[in-house]
Amino acid sequence: MNPLLIEDAVRRALAEDLGDAGDITTLACIPASALSSAVIAARASGVIAGVELARAAFRLVDPRVEVAVEKDDGARVQRGDIALRIEGPSRAILTAERAALNFLGHLSGVATATATLVEAVKGTKAKIVCTRKTTPGLRAFEKHAVRCGGGANHRFGLYDAMMIKDNHIVAAGGITRAMTAARAAAGHLVKIEIEVDGLDGLKEALAAGAEVVLLDNMPVEDMKKAVALNAGRAVLEASGNVTLQTVRAIAETGVDVISSGAITHSAPALDLGLDFL
Amino acid sequence: MNPLLIEDAVRRALAEDLGDAGDITTLACIPASALSSAVIAARASGVIAGVELARAAFRLVDPRVEVAVEKDDGARVQRGDIALRIEGPSRAILTAERAALNFLGHLSGVATATATLVEAVKGTKAKIVCTRKTTPGLRAFEKHAVRCGGGANHRFGLYDAMMIKDNHIVAAGGITRAMTAARAAAGHLVKIEIEVDGLDGLKEALAAGAEVVLLDNMPVEDMKKAVALNAGRAVLEASGNVTLQTVRAIAETGVDVISSGAITHSAPALDLGLDFL
Amino acid sequence: MNPLLIEDAVRRALAEDLGDAGDITTLACIPASALSSAVIAARASGVIAGVELARAAFRLVDPRVEVAVEKDDGARVQRGDIALRIEGPSRAILTAERAALNFLGHLSGVATATATLVEAVKGTKAKIVCTRKTTPGLRAFEKHAVRCGGGANHRFGLYDAMMIKDNHIVAAGGITRAMTAARAAAGHLVKIEIEVDGLDGLKEALAAGAEVVLLDNMPVEDMKKAVALNAGRAVLEASGNVTLQTVRAIAETGVDVISSGAITHSAPALDLGLDFL
Amino acid sequence: MNPLLIEDAVRRALAEDLGDAGDITTLACIPASALSSAVIAARASGVIAGVELARAAFRLVDPRVEVAVEKDDGARVQRGDIALRIEGPSRAILTAERAALNFLGHLSGVATATATLVEAVKGTKAKIVCTRKTTPGLRAFEKHAVRCGGGANHRFGLYDAMMIKDNHIVAAGGITRAMTAARAAAGHLVKIEIEVDGLDGLKEALAAGAEVVLLDNMPVEDMKKAVALNAGRAVLEASGNVTLQTVRAIAETGVDVISSGAITHSAPALDLGLDFL
Amino acid sequence: MNPLLIEDAVRRALAEDLGDAGDITTLACIPASALSSAVIAARASGVIAGVELARAAFRLVDPRVEVAVEKDDGARVQRGDIALRIEGPSRAILTAERAALNFLGHLSGVATATATLVEAVKGTKAKIVCTRKTTPGLRAFEKHAVRCGGGANHRFGLYDAMMIKDNHIVAAGGITRAMTAARAAAGHLVKIEIEVDGLDGLKEALAAGAEVVLLDNMPVEDMKKAVALNAGRAVLEASGNVTLQTVRAIAETGVDVISSGAITHSAPALDLGLDFL
Amino acid sequence: MNPLLIEDAVRRALAEDLGDAGDITTLACIPASALSSAVIAARASGVIAGVELARAAFRLVDPRVEVAVEKDDGARVQRGDIALRIEGPSRAILTAERAALNFLGHLSGVATATATLVEAVKGTKAKIVCTRKTTPGLRAFEKHAVRCGGGANHRFGLYDAMMIKDNHIVAAGGITRAMTAARAAAGHLVKIEIEVDGLDGLKEALAAGAEVVLLDNMPVEDMKKAVALNAGRAVLEASGNVTLQTVRAIAETGVDVISSGAITHSAPALDLGLDFL
Repeated sequence: MNPLLIEDAVRRALAEDLGDAGDITTLACIPASALSSAVIAARASGVIAGVELARAAFRLVDPRVEVAVEKDDGARVQRGDIALRIEGPSRAILTAERAALNFLGHLSGVATATATLVEAVKGTKAKIVCTRKTTPGLRAFEKHAVRCGGGANHRFGLYDAMMIKDNHIVAAGGITRAMTAARAAAGHLVKIEIEVDGLDGLKEALAAGAEVVLLDNMPVEDMKKAVALNAGRAVLEASGNVTLQTVRAIAETGVDVISSGAITHSAPALDLGLDFL
Repeated sequence: MNPLLIEDAVRRALAEDLGDAGDITTLACIPASALSSAVIAARASGVIAGVELARAAFRLVDPRVEVAVEKDDGARVQRGDIALRIEGPSRAILTAERAALNFLGHLSGVATATATLVEAVKGTKAKIVCTRKTTPGLRAFEKHAVRCGGGANHRFGLYDAMMIKDNHIVAAGGITRAMTAARAAAGHLVKIEIEVDGLDGLKEALAAGAEVVLLDNMPVEDMKKAVALNAGRAVLEASGNVTLQTVRAIAETGVDVISSGAITHSAPALDLGLDFL
Repeated sequence: MNPLLIEDAVRRALAEDLGDAGDITTLACIPASALSSAVIAARASGVIAGVELARAAFRLVDPRVEVAVEKDDGARVQRGDIALRIEGPSRAILTAERAALNFLGHLSGVATATATLVEAVKGTKAKIVCTRKTTPGLRAFEKHAVRCGGGANHRFGLYDAMMIKDNHIVAAGGITRAMTAARAAAGHLVKIEIEVDGLDGLKEALAAGAEVVLLDNMPVEDMKKAVALNAGRAVLEASGNVTLQTVRAIAETGVDVISSGAITHSAPALDLGLDFL
Repeated sequence: MNPLLIEDAVRRALAEDLGDAGDITTLACIPASALSSAVIAARASGVIAGVELARAAFRLVDPRVEVAVEKDDGARVQRGDIALRIEGPSRAILTAERAALNFLGHLSGVATATATLVEAVKGTKAKIVCTRKTTPGLRAFEKHAVRCGGGANHRFGLYDAMMIKDNHIVAAGGITRAMTAARAAAGHLVKIEIEVDGLDGLKEALAAGAEVVLLDNMPVEDMKKAVALNAGRAVLEASGNVTLQTVRAIAETGVDVISSGAITHSAPALDLGLDFL
Repeated sequence: MNPLLIEDAVRRALAEDLGDAGDITTLACIPASALSSAVIAARASGVIAGVELARAAFRLVDPRVEVAVEKDDGARVQRGDIALRIEGPSRAILTAERAALNFLGHLSGVATATATLVEAVKGTKAKIVCTRKTTPGLRAFEKHAVRCGGGANHRFGLYDAMMIKDNHIVAAGGITRAMTAARAAAGHLVKIEIEVDGLDGLKEALAAGAEVVLLDNMPVEDMKKAVALNAGRAVLEASGNVTLQTVRAIAETGVDVISSGAITHSAPALDLGLDFL
Repeated sequence: MNPLLIEDAVRRALAEDLGDAGDITTLACIPASALSSAVIAARASGVIAGVELARAAFRLVDPRVEVAVEKDDGARVQRGDIALRIEGPSRAILTAERAALNFLGHLSGVATATATLVEAVKGTKAKIVCTRKTTPGLRAFEKHAVRCGGGANHRFGLYDAMMIKDNHIVAAGGITRAMTAARAAAGHLVKIEIEVDGLDGLKEALAAGAEVVLLDNMPVEDMKKAVALNAGRAVLEASGNVTLQTVRAIAETGVDVISSGAITHSAPALDLGLDFL
């Protein structure tokens, strides 16, 4: 991940929470000189992600706040485990608390959802990857959280790889023509993936020399046939209807990659709380 | 909601998806002159929110794209219902599609989760409200989505109302002192809410003239006693352990407001898709 | 005040003053190695506000400049009093001087104008508050300066409290209907104020349960009657024709709050100057 | 003035006033379909400045609002004169009103204060000019307002002309050396002004070939001598203790330029109000 | 290219040229009502790039300016050829002229330098590609200009493909280990290129399954051997010492791709001028 | 130069190079704990400019990187000379390398091109100055680089001096009228230059009291006559057809200033490289 993105994102979150008037309750009730120690602890089990964003929230509100990391990004936590220890001016800790927890809870939620799928396919060769179905404004961080959870990244956007979908195929006049058009336009460091919805499509894609093929919403039986037909030539990605219930069966077809939008767009936040000591 | 926030948020999402190189697949496979019609349709039932953000995504990529709204923010949809009809250059529709759907899916998810709780408390006087546990960068939009789902808004941030929590009470030297300090600092248009974790706290808060009291993680039986003890003086907010399973019983205690973090931080996206006609 | 706003505002002021070429006179005439001591002193009596913005101006131009605060925000100064002591590279002190003084002079002017009105109503229960008639781009700082001068803050913007004015009342179909519409839309932490221009309006507002009522441009005699009629039910705010000549009489009517636009939009700058030692 | 600066400044002002939640009173009380006509009228006499900023405020909130200009920048108004006619959605007019008036009132205040000094020196050759003592963030607009009031502009910042002040002279080792250093560094399109505090300084500056000399806080009698001594060689600027009371006498000494900080940093806002028709 | 990048870049260029005071010469000498027609014409032969940026410059200064495109991006021009026809307010045309020409001249210079190399290798299979040696702030536009000149794009940044260089190889413990580490970390849509400086390196890279290999500063004779040794397995990129004198010989070795930093970092501007009609 | 511009420009360059995913090769191949020493050395002779931008690139990626300056801005380097020594985390050095070199190479290229012209006119009184034909987004830095190369700066933009060109003259109705209009609008610290294309124009300009005159594309013989005719009254600037071949002859005509667009818009980058030790 590009670490230079962190400060902007955290400033935006703090601006949202502090507005013009700031933390008016804390300014009214807590003396400026008060110092506190606190911890951020897990209230459920999961995988941590977003520690650097949480740290930045405290630091940006007051550089005197010290944050010690007990559980870094990628670490598994159980209910009660302490992730971060925080020390410094009480006002700053209270003011930054929610922004820090909102990042940490959301991204740890993504990491945890990913880890659950990764666990489910253990022993197969399938990698769990995310999609572009991310929360607007947080893609770089969610892509990072997916890696913290043991998953891998699909392309980051429309710009870093080609993905030829059904509409591109129709507009270009078929799979072969679309592959040709894409290859002519792509630089020598751009990978091209093509989406097919059946075995005929796969055959045509392979004949056109496809390196990566997305099997779109295919029944598990067809995926097995696709793996056999492919015989190791292209990287095969399974997409559609991927849930904790279905993912093992999909992985066992022998596909290389299984993509899930839900691990980014529908992951519940991991429950984490800040407690003063 | 402040409508001037939309363009910035959508530009940020498009920047994330387009990078420097843009939609390289579409540029390679779709002629600049191609025109298309498409619809955004629901693939599950729920409540729509975020239509203006989706519209802005298409318009910012190409002002020639026309978007007609069939289901506006707050409308209920069933699987198959068309929410938006889109017409214009095929390239722009494909390029903006994911940014538009990411906003619409996420915010409709928040609206739908809210509506589910609102439905569950129907007939009681309890209002469902959101918290500050929102997705960083999207608070204004999620607060709006909560209203689309029939909920109401808690304070927007640390700046627009006072909420005296346990740490403020401890630092100030008790409930009465904290209330006094808060009142002295608050302008005449600032409301003050105080958090209590039991009936003794409630009594002290009411004695101190509290207008709004948060009952933090109280058992339902205690909440009933709190409602009786309060006798209509303060607005009572129930917080903690609010789920679809518990919310009806909480509402039936007679509290005025029930707050849920989950409707913003853990709402799964509503499944919506774009189909070319 | 949200302290994270300071750096952006000061960077904008420095950008305005330095342009692309920077401080070309100082670069030409002062060696890079020269060090100086200087003070910022009052050339008239008043109340200081904006010390943190002045400090930031020096620090952003060169982090080696040290600023010691003799008179912090809210302190009264007499002609000749030293507010800040500055030490460091001469170039940076000269380059940041005007930006620092422009903030300090303007905000101390607001604090001083506020303090003058506050002094004038001493002994009454009336609080002096500011309005939304602030200098564009500086609202958070001017609201803070009003507090430095002993005043209190009205709402910060259109977003943090409701203020039902004549046009809202007309559009809603009367005071009672406007109050009903406002209450239905307001969250439980939003206060509602309603503007009336006479005793009949006040009666209707109180009957509708108004908590805060603005008495718009009423003669002092009518304000007295309004206070009697109100009998402590709503918070009463006097607005309109508030000057140093009129404010005492207004305060003595027994109103709770007196609002003045002039303390923010028409306060002359406090005369402060930087002197090299 | 650079017209591209307007939109950013107005967006910043609107952000300040609308926050995340927007104009919650208007959203609650005024139907989205309501249309209104309104005028912005003067409630005191003065000179208008800032019309384009006021227009932009309405347009940015809703492009359907139409603004017709009756009194453009530089026009004199009397109490009751209509400056702008506004037509469009009632909500947008109410929401943008304060931002529009805050710009118009402040900048017209600057123009009016300038015009008062310009009027006072009528018939002399002296030009009234502003300084760098401007409101942070609004310099370009205040410089423009000064021109609307009949004044002229001093340099815009530290970057567009050299101004050798006492500290530069001391550091450089005297007037002649400072002039030499400045000339060596200045491009061929950079003017150099030097500040002197007496006739000896003026003599040395003229001997060093100064083109523009600032007479700092000199008594009127000395200024007369300075004008005689100068004999038309350099442009002479009078600075310090410039008030409505003193300005005529200063002008009659024969100086070319009289600079005033007060016309930008201490001009009271011109009273303007928006009335619905 | 992402078209949403254009406005920001052009606004930045206009801000640089207009400052706060704007185009003071034009405001002084040209009446606001004056209208003009002008053309942008080539004063040397080359390839056009950047037309959309030039258009945006005129449009942003004044939306009434109409720009008709005679020679679009990628078109060859000869001295005297008209690229753009411009009509509208004279002031806006003069004010935007330099910003428009600076983009057009620079980017057409890049396109022209690219086209010269492309021409030189005509008939071979070698593609000319750019590098990351671009002008800071203009990479997306320069990458686009390279394509206008008939070249292709290398990776856009550090983020969209892996390029294992000598330092990575040393740190990883050799070519094979570096390839293994890179593969383990790379998503399935990320291409990996590895740099070698001799035939032994190439052998090891091919043995490790490299898909793309950069031949760093190899003599032409060694490149020929590399092409033979590779036998079509990996894409081979020649890098280093690429000039108009050497490029043909490099291309004739049979490499697939030849990269040049000079086409972006050292391309002289194409001479274009704006003439009023 | 305004030093506050550096961080923004470098952040923009790093954003361009790092995208969302960051330096994926380095993250894959280099351990986080690895430390390195490196140098930036010249691979050709020239003049250094941009050292502060290069330093900022390393510091912004990781504040632990230490950069020692051996050759500061304005220093001449020969092939092999070390300009900067860099020490710190290997990852950060690799990640920031290209951004640092792109600034340093480009700006040193401008400084070197300037120095070449300055050297060519040595012994004459002519100063070499740059124009507004700069690279969009980099003007302040290129103007600084010109000074590093021994040149001087023309105006920075349209805002800091007046330059009356042929179109202004035509629109104003002749040289005398244009001068009159310009003088009436210009503040007392604004210099006015007027462009003439022949001796008649020069005569009229001098008669109108011009202080600075640009001789546009005049033959050397005419420039000599212009210098004689001028007799030291105005500053004379030669413009047009300035190359290394022509510049000496132009300087020997006795003009004061020679302006070159090529030193900013067409200077090849100075070849500099980073080597690990």
